Amino acid sequence: MSEAPIGVFDSGMGGLTVLKALLRRLPGEDFVYLGDTARLPYGTKSPETVARYALQAAEALEAYRVKCLVIACNTASSVGLPIIQERIESVPVVGVIEPGARAACEASSSGHIAVIATEGTVRGGAYQQAILRLRPGARVTALPAPLFVSLAEEGLHTGSIAGAVARHYLRPIFGATDSAESRPDTLVLGCTHFLMLAASIRRAAGRGVRIVDSAATTAEAVEQGLSNAGLLRAGATGSFSGVPKSARKSSCTGGTVRFLATDGIERFARIGGGFLGRAITPGEVELIDL
Amino acid sequence: MSEAPIGVFDSGMGGLTVLKALLRRLPGEDFVYLGDTARLPYGTKSPETVARYALQAAEALEAYRVKCLVIACNTASSVGLPIIQERIESVPVVGVIEPGARAACEASSSGHIAVIATEGTVRGGAYQQAILRLRPGARVTALPAPLFVSLAEEGLHTGSIAGAVARHYLRPIFGATDSAESRPDTLVLGCTHFLMLAASIRRAAGRGVRIVDSAATTAEAVEQGLSNAGLLRAGATGSFSGVPKSARKSSCTGGTVRFLATDGIERFARIGGGFLGRAITPGEVELIDL
Repeated sequence: MSEAPIGVFDSGMGGLTVLKALLRRLPGEDFVYLGDTARLPYGTKSPETVARYALQAAEALEAYRVKCLVIACNTASSVGLPIIQERIESVPVVGVIEPGARAACEASSSGHIAVIATEGTVRGGAYQQAILRLRPGARVTALPAPLFVSLAEEGLHTGSIAGAVARHYLRPIFGATDSAESRPDTLVLGCTHFLMLAASIRRAAGRGVRIVDSAATTAEAVEQGLSNAGLLRAGATGSFSGVPKSARKSSCTGGTVRFLATDGIERFARIGGGFLGRAITPGEVELIDL
Repeated sequence: MSEAPIGVFDSGMGGLTVLKALLRRLPGEDFVYLGDTARLPYGTKSPETVARYALQAAEALEAYRVKCLVIACNTASSVGLPIIQERIESVPVVGVIEPGARAACEASSSGHIAVIATEGTVRGGAYQQAILRLRPGARVTALPAPLFVSLAEEGLHTGSIAGAVARHYLRPIFGATDSAESRPDTLVLGCTHFLMLAASIRRAAGRGVRIVDSAATTAEAVEQGLSNAGLLRAGATGSFSGVPKSARKSSCTGGTVRFLATDGIERFARIGGGFLGRAITPGEVELIDL
């Protein structure tokens, strides 16, 4: 069972930022990544629809005999995680909300935490609830920032447009007129796409604001979950940093990724490569129907 | 049959700009508007998927016994129109590409026409082909401008962000360094959303560029098609301009709109109201499954 791959699911390509963090943390594991590109974005859809789609995707990945399921989409995690955990009992299911909320609670000194996410994630209130559960008395300011999704997909990560949009969303939260006390000291990037715009977001939020993304913290939670269940592949952990590329291959038994998408393979490869931080060729991506 | 409603289909809310033009041109007609909000956007999906979705939507509207079907989505028109026209033989089917291309050919003096649209519409090449069919020897510059969709839905129609995005897309086409000869003299807004940003687009394109949108021209084509088929409702045509609101109601037998959406009724009503130019309440929108 420990030789089985880890399943990663997202509405599209944004979850590839989580896969990138997973590959870095667990370079010896194999992965199956499923992007539901035919039905993206999830962020503007109703909770019922998102939960239904997420469950279909989870069941599809189950058929690939994965040993663990990562819901690498904030919107799907926020509305679909409980139902997926209930239905997929055979393997651990990890979402991105809980790890992100935990990291934010640890990072914040004042307990005033801001969350930017898609409309669906903000409206669902999962981050707000997770933060308050972990740190009762925390103050949470949550705001939808849907334009960041389009900017990330267009590759406009920095520059004047990204800067203007970041200021548009973040000024009302971190505006200079507020006193330091009323300003959040921590900002959660509650959508996997937003990590691509981290530099622009950091600049707009201003000095002293800690930026928390759930990619790295989710990878940590996955490692922990697999370790607890005795499912970590032997020699699968560690970091690639400082290891030459040739040595990586020979030292790892796994490290393969199988990409599945429900539509638009060419676009998945083109945009996804930017999110994953390495080129994806259309030939690597399999088209599946959910 | 002439008393039957006109069916209008779009991937979401953008087509409400076309419905607005139809209501203005044919105020005595009744309409059924279907937005496939569960599966939007179509602009980034593969042609096969869009054609399949569009056909399902067309068949759903056929069940409402419409006398004419308007495909008010550029992406769906560009890849789905032929198959819909083939399958739905009972009523005239009108797309937005042909009327927009025709208006552009009439507006252009130089024959150099620019088209901005979604990725899917540009890649499909339907505008380019329609323009060249109507005006052989025309030169067409087509460019995807997907961020305009998000800006329109966010309500950022004017202001610094809309301006920066418009310059980002239009400078490469209408850039000041080019000589006037090599610049297009006409710009087609090849996505129903873009009409909302017309002022920002006009400013970025610069003086002397004629802006063509397909909403008004499609309404004209629908009127013509119904007239040719003897299906115009008696007293249905005319313009509201100058007619007081009280008089409109009493002078029209029709003018009703039935809204159907496949998901997110609250969001459809909230964002759709801006596109239609009048408030839509969630209670007016029926949820249907395709």
